[in-house]
Amino acid sequence: MARKEKNYDKKALYLSSKYGGKITIKPTVKVRSMADLSAVYTPGIAAVSERIVADPESSYEFTWRWNTIFIITNGTRVLGLGNEGPLASLPVMEGKSLLYKLYGGVNAIPIPIKSTDPREFTDVVDAISITAGGIHLEDIASPFCFDVLERLRERISVPVWHDDQQGTAGVTLAGLINAFKLVEKDLKTAKIVLVGAGAANIALFNLLEKYGVNVGNIIVGDSKGPLNKNRLDIEEIKISNRWKYNVLERSNHTGVMEIDESFDDADAIVGFSRGGSIMPSWIKRMAKKSIVFANANPTPEIWPAAAKKAGAYIVSTGRSDYPNQINNSLVFPGLFRGVLDSRAKKIDYGMIIAAAEAIAKIAERKGLKREFILPKMGYQNLHAVVAASVAEYASKSGNSAIRGNFEFFYKNAKNIISKGFRR
Amino acid sequence: MARKEKNYDKKALYLSSKYGGKITIKPTVKVRSMADLSAVYTPGIAAVSERIVADPESSYEFTWRWNTIFIITNGTRVLGLGNEGPLASLPVMEGKSLLYKLYGGVNAIPIPIKSTDPREFTDVVDAISITAGGIHLEDIASPFCFDVLERLRERISVPVWHDDQQGTAGVTLAGLINAFKLVEKDLKTAKIVLVGAGAANIALFNLLEKYGVNVGNIIVGDSKGPLNKNRLDIEEIKISNRWKYNVLERSNHTGVMEIDESFDDADAIVGFSRGGSIMPSWIKRMAKKSIVFANANPTPEIWPAAAKKAGAYIVSTGRSDYPNQINNSLVFPGLFRGVLDSRAKKIDYGMIIAAAEAIAKIAERKGLKREFILPKMGYQNLHAVVAASVAEYASKSGNSAIRGNFEFFYKNAKNIISKGFRR
Repeated sequence: MARKEKNYDKKALYLSSKYGGKITIKPTVKVRSMADLSAVYTPGIAAVSERIVADPESSYEFTWRWNTIFIITNGTRVLGLGNEGPLASLPVMEGKSLLYKLYGGVNAIPIPIKSTDPREFTDVVDAISITAGGIHLEDIASPFCFDVLERLRERISVPVWHDDQQGTAGVTLAGLINAFKLVEKDLKTAKIVLVGAGAANIALFNLLEKYGVNVGNIIVGDSKGPLNKNRLDIEEIKISNRWKYNVLERSNHTGVMEIDESFDDADAIVGFSRGGSIMPSWIKRMAKKSIVFANANPTPEIWPAAAKKAGAYIVSTGRSDYPNQINNSLVFPGLFRGVLDSRAKKIDYGMIIAAAEAIAKIAERKGLKREFILPKMGYQNLHAVVAASVAEYASKSGNSAIRGNFEFFYKNAKNIISKGFRR
Repeated sequence: MARKEKNYDKKALYLSSKYGGKITIKPTVKVRSMADLSAVYTPGIAAVSERIVADPESSYEFTWRWNTIFIITNGTRVLGLGNEGPLASLPVMEGKSLLYKLYGGVNAIPIPIKSTDPREFTDVVDAISITAGGIHLEDIASPFCFDVLERLRERISVPVWHDDQQGTAGVTLAGLINAFKLVEKDLKTAKIVLVGAGAANIALFNLLEKYGVNVGNIIVGDSKGPLNKNRLDIEEIKISNRWKYNVLERSNHTGVMEIDESFDDADAIVGFSRGGSIMPSWIKRMAKKSIVFANANPTPEIWPAAAKKAGAYIVSTGRSDYPNQINNSLVFPGLFRGVLDSRAKKIDYGMIIAAAEAIAKIAERKGLKREFILPKMGYQNLHAVVAASVAEYASKSGNSAIRGNFEFFYKNAKNIISKGFRR
């Protein structure tokens, strides 16, 4: 294991240094003469500016805006590394941008920001997002991330996505849909424990509710145990993290106060916390055919072998070197392709559920197994199908400027995505 | 004329709509397997982040920062169009980005900003510039542009360039150097009139001073006539535009108060003002072999035919369809190539003069004529020569992290620029 990690590291340093950036700017137009230049720059370009003044929506036709989003972070929660700051987040954001291009055909510009004040952060993103087709937030610590997501959605007119909330919740929902299918239980009435109360699990809780799950049956635990109304720090939570407080209020209707007890007869547990934080003895207390998503990265809450030994039936991790990887990359390239293609005004729960169901269905068609509940990110047409599912939903719900059916959006997305791999 | 303009407009709208953006993001690395992905993204990429935390300078090695700048504008002075706002400035900024790539090999990301408050504007640029290799300011109204350039240079650690000040001043100096050579007069003791007291001419005034010109002999006129110590609005200028006031104090040592009188015996005039603002009768009052740069766009202060009829010997405009175009594009792609290649800490007057002299010399080698005082922007090696001249100067003056001689920087720049045209 350690050796494999080291190899990735070495290769990552080598490739990053060799290419000096995983993405680059390229011209789309051929410039062969001064006359060409006069059309792509002054004086001709003035006509395009004036058209946009007259009709701001035409910016989607005449500029790269139709296909361009900004990846914004302040680097306060970079991967599993923690608060590395905006500069050190750049290689990760470049990687994200690369995936966006390869799998979604999307221009995603990494713009790490130096700011840890939610108001200032929002001001900056508001000021720069004027020409973006959308905003992708990434690797921002909780609860700051909830705050800025809310503020930005009120302030700016283009769709805002926070991958560590919505992307992670979306792919986890896809995994849960298929895992529950395999064990022949009903997700909507299941007993579920969410280990960790950060961005991912709070977003997952809200998404599960929108999906129709009875969230009173869900128990959410943080480092001090299950959220419940008898917590001694309840007032502190209320003040410092109202999103977590909101979860506290609606979850855990039986009022369980101990984390090990919360595992009793649980159908599924989903960890987005810290490596090693789940004990095998807790897994043993779960219901039959238990589902264990241990997604902490790089070290899972419990290693798959240990979880299975303790009785887990289906196990996922966040790692690419184990089966059933819970991987955001299944969601975001296709989802934002669909958002851009439909010119959706916002990204709502319905669109995330549409993406999750599309992803689940693709795996189901290949034949679900205990070690195969999610498709791989390289699957042909996966991202185009996600894009079309999202765009179709946005279109049907009246939430998009461009209307169309699945086939329309699928053909379009497939065409654009096919160009993403070209260097 | 009008017909030609219309054709450019039509072609500009057609091309902008066809390509939906003149630039795009492309991958630099091939991704063929999950193992490749593990190196360009998680988990491998964490090693790159940690390296940058340990050594922030290594961000120039491991990310696109070594070759990436941000083009920032608030759209308050877009081309000759005026205050079109940030969104409508995007096609122009994309054009600029295209030129940067084609001629300088530079990744230049257009980021128009919604802000007309200098303090807020500076805060935003400060917050986002953390991962940029440099900042290119563009199409920002005066005197706001002076204010933010000063503030940014104090606040941020990467080089800041304002093209409408320094780029325009730089290429104008190159033109003046060759024009004075042709008429066999001494630029440094010449009588010069600058028509217009905006970003370009105020920057030109300061650059000419650094070049060694006796600026007491220069008269700078705005819409109310020559700047001089008897102006009734002198207190207002002092308060509202201290950069202009500074020029007022140092220029016009004979205290000329009328614009037509300022042309008496002038060796050269440089207009960066409004179309039609220079009368033929004024040109007639100039010295023999007079030099007339009428650079307002798209309509010059005086059309070349009228200027020549009134006695002008050498005439330039800002237009590509007339001889002697004063064109910023001769400067900025090579200049920033040189800045990035030498990793210069700032852009000082010496570097701009180095660029101007290099540009002047290239035209001189081809043989100066009245209608040929500047090279065309498509000249082979022009931008690599500019880059190497700038980088060499930065290196010699101890202002750069990477040291080298002309040959070193030239070879490097030529190699990078040669890739810029590849789509």
